[in-house]
Amino acid sequence: MAEISIRKARQIIKGTFAKGREMELKPLSVIVLDAGGHVKAFEREDGAAPGRFAIAQGKAYGAVMLGMAGTAQMARAEQQAYFMAAVNGVYGGQVVPVPGGVLVRDKKGAVIGAVGVTGDTSDNDAEAALAGLALAQLEGEI
Amino acid sequence: MAEISIRKARQIIKGTFAKGREMELKPLSVIVLDAGGHVKAFEREDGAAPGRFAIAQGKAYGAVMLGMAGTAQMARAEQQAYFMAAVNGVYGGQVVPVPGGVLVRDKKGAVIGAVGVTGDTSDNDAEAALAGLALAQLEGEI
Amino acid sequence: MAEISIRKARQIIKGTFAKGREMELKPLSVIVLDAGGHVKAFEREDGAAPGRFAIAQGKAYGAVMLGMAGTAQMARAEQQAYFMAAVNGVYGGQVVPVPGGVLVRDKKGAVIGAVGVTGDTSDNDAEAALAGLALAQLEGEI
Amino acid sequence: MAEISIRKARQIIKGTFAKGREMELKPLSVIVLDAGGHVKAFEREDGAAPGRFAIAQGKAYGAVMLGMAGTAQMARAEQQAYFMAAVNGVYGGQVVPVPGGVLVRDKKGAVIGAVGVTGDTSDNDAEAALAGLALAQLEGEI
Repeated sequence: MAEISIRKARQIIKGTFAKGREMELKPLSVIVLDAGGHVKAFEREDGAAPGRFAIAQGKAYGAVMLGMAGTAQMARAEQQAYFMAAVNGVYGGQVVPVPGGVLVRDKKGAVIGAVGVTGDTSDNDAEAALAGLALAQLEGEI
Repeated sequence: MAEISIRKARQIIKGTFAKGREMELKPLSVIVLDAGGHVKAFEREDGAAPGRFAIAQGKAYGAVMLGMAGTAQMARAEQQAYFMAAVNGVYGGQVVPVPGGVLVRDKKGAVIGAVGVTGDTSDNDAEAALAGLALAQLEGEI
Repeated sequence: MAEISIRKARQIIKGTFAKGREMELKPLSVIVLDAGGHVKAFEREDGAAPGRFAIAQGKAYGAVMLGMAGTAQMARAEQQAYFMAAVNGVYGGQVVPVPGGVLVRDKKGAVIGAVGVTGDTSDNDAEAALAGLALAQLEGEI
Repeated sequence: MAEISIRKARQIIKGTFAKGREMELKPLSVIVLDAGGHVKAFEREDGAAPGRFAIAQGKAYGAVMLGMAGTAQMARAEQQAYFMAAVNGVYGGQVVPVPGGVLVRDKKGAVIGAVGVTGDTSDNDAEAALAGLALAQLEGEI
């Protein structure tokens, strides 16, 4: 399956945490999913709340499953709340439709996975994710 | 149970995809359910996001279970979001109340199944579904 | 994501049904999943019981998620029933560990998806699946 | 809550993978949970099947929740399969009662988390986990 290698996944996590420290954000949690929505890597910084795995996963999972990043999901949720609620239902309650769910594509435009970041504001989470992707020489769609 | 035959189901899917290409829509996914809401056939075009099965199923499932097509479900959701949320609950989170869920009846008016299409805008999804049903010489209620 | 194209998926289904008719099997249902376990295509022959989708999916889903085909899953279930029961729990009850769940690899050995067949005996289901894969010029691990 | 720091968690994962390569095991997946059973860190080696997160989590989760490592859980499952099945039920299907679920205690004997390893045989998974814990200067109960 197309996926972000474990080496690249570690770089994404490292770069996201580094940006979080630089921006003085709250402790972050970062997940990297493959193109099928399955977990490749995850880290939760010391001091982050225990339930952060599910939030990070929810942000990234919706992005992969719908082929739609967090910002676009949030726009849809603002317009048609019942639609995103229903989408969440069909995906077993695993979708968190806000920024911080970042879609990752290869150079031909095919989705190879997603990154989910949580811990600070949604916009800061997304900014830190992009820094992580940059360290891994990947581009993200927030 | 009354159902759409597998031969007709293939025609519905073929006709929906043909309309999608003609209208230059994004890659589509099409499901055909029987009168009990159970899957008869499904296809996901190359390039569609991996989670499209559940969206297509959710659109068609609600139509069969409620005897109400996607447009009517959406109207109800706009008026009474909590009602459709509750309906979703009793059906195990499997209802997506927007156009693209198309109810199919026989000549006497009895429901014989439903079609669910997803991938482009809800209205385009519904239009493509009708073209698929036309190819199979069936009428749909969007 | 690595996946079986929709064109190949249709060949797999067609070839499986043809083998089923040749062997005079009961009506069959065939699912094709991608490398992330998500539905690419499904067909249920006329006369098959309504719940066959879930059985076909369960056979193929376990194969993809564990990287282990139906025969190997069955062997493990025979040895350690509680282990396969637990695996089923972590995968949301979606695993049916018997032959008819067939793993599909590309020429380099990477999993590109799985096929699930149900309707007759498990062994006949698996034999029909292999015929379907042969028509699509793919090899399966039963 | 008592937990394994993210620095130590990375060492556990690194040491487990190193042992896996030294023993020439199949690709491994490693999870580190905190004392509340929540995910602290996870990595899946390239080449591992997509569903390995849930198996790794299930091994470690049962260890934390029951305060009983994988080997003891397996012994109980061999004696009383229905008991472990019931335990699985009350924990939402998240328990995989075999070796590879390793309990981690601090110097006073208090549980500070658990490690779950999957990919090879259960015994090899457990051996690799112990090597990972040794690198982090922690002791594990398999």
